[in-house]
Amino acid sequence: MIDTIGLDADDTLWHNETIFADYEQRMADLVARYLPAVNFHERLINLERHNVAIFGYGIKGFVLSMIETAIEATEGRITAEEIHTIVGWAKEMHQHPVELLDGVANTIHDLETRYRLVLITKGDLWNQETKIAASGIADHFDVIEIVAEKDEATYARLFERHNIAVNRFVMVGNSIRSDIDPVVALGGRAVHIPYHLTWDLEQRIDPNISPTHPNYTTLSNIGQLPTWLATQR
Amino acid sequence: MIDTIGLDADDTLWHNETIFADYEQRMADLVARYLPAVNFHERLINLERHNVAIFGYGIKGFVLSMIETAIEATEGRITAEEIHTIVGWAKEMHQHPVELLDGVANTIHDLETRYRLVLITKGDLWNQETKIAASGIADHFDVIEIVAEKDEATYARLFERHNIAVNRFVMVGNSIRSDIDPVVALGGRAVHIPYHLTWDLEQRIDPNISPTHPNYTTLSNIGQLPTWLATQR
Repeated sequence: MIDTIGLDADDTLWHNETIFADYEQRMADLVARYLPAVNFHERLINLERHNVAIFGYGIKGFVLSMIETAIEATEGRITAEEIHTIVGWAKEMHQHPVELLDGVANTIHDLETRYRLVLITKGDLWNQETKIAASGIADHFDVIEIVAEKDEATYARLFERHNIAVNRFVMVGNSIRSDIDPVVALGGRAVHIPYHLTWDLEQRIDPNISPTHPNYTTLSNIGQLPTWLATQR
Repeated sequence: MIDTIGLDADDTLWHNETIFADYEQRMADLVARYLPAVNFHERLINLERHNVAIFGYGIKGFVLSMIETAIEATEGRITAEEIHTIVGWAKEMHQHPVELLDGVANTIHDLETRYRLVLITKGDLWNQETKIAASGIADHFDVIEIVAEKDEATYARLFERHNIAVNRFVMVGNSIRSDIDPVVALGGRAVHIPYHLTWDLEQRIDPNISPTHPNYTTLSNIGQLPTWLATQR
């Protein structure tokens, strides 16, 4: 019997990757004026793979990596004024409205009376707190945890801190790497709700847990969650 | 009788503001090649005062603000290669060794057997976790809390979460705005240990609590803390 539901935030409760993809496209268009044939996305993701270990997750590290990629790709031909524009994008991204995914508000209202709801999100503390406050649904969660990384050690620490019994817990999220694999590895259940975009660095690295694992389910929309929960013992 | 000690981290346990000042000086020297008479510090702090509400605290927001200030001050004459160098500084700052202040290691070892030690630091989650891990003293703390802002609401939340009795709590730190005023306002005690540099945005804004307040003490070095604690009832 499940009593506690963990919910990821970015691309599970509200849109996020679409905003990053939008600004990456603007950057690619800008660089394409200098280098029509460059694969900006590939260059950026190769740099981010290195930089994320230094900068962590979030908008500011993403924008610093975009600036670095643009300068290197154009061999310094991009202008300071263009970089000024990019810094302005960092501010726009931070101030972007929070847009809930379809079905989120109704589902949270439905579940909150019957389950303990725990929001578990990773990334930039300041930006995540800003988005949580702007989401309008923060009050429906019993616990809100913003963490630097969502791995087994982090989930184990949260289970202990909040007295969560792993066999009564389900994690719901869009990232197999951050929301599904570590929870199933610890003996919990996990529901994967794919988002139409997945950041390359969230792609699963080590496919230990197959989609046929009994603790691992895929739903196409968060609105299906209450019905699925009713089937769980 | 005090049973719980809150300790700030940046500029209380380890050096921090000196690193920011060092890189700001490099930036000022770079801009001075274009504009010998510009007051770079004043321009930067005026921009940070605005940007910190969008970016939050930490190295990445600081470096984005430095880039923005340099482009605006030089009216776009700073080159992309120079901006490339500045992005490199952001990485250097993140990878800077953690250097404990004099007396910190001995004092923490002395206090940990007799008090509950709570590390309370604000800023960038990823960078703070990296520094805490690198400090070598993380294991001596009973609780570690990284928060987005250190105001009365945050301290009240931490007191409740960790069952801290405010009349048995003392906060120790270098920032009157973040470590002293909010804790004294809640009825706790606070020990101010000034660092030789204070970031302009940490300067006290509203001097409600005077240095003669009975709950507010100044020490010149953390090594004096055990002796002061012995005098407290």
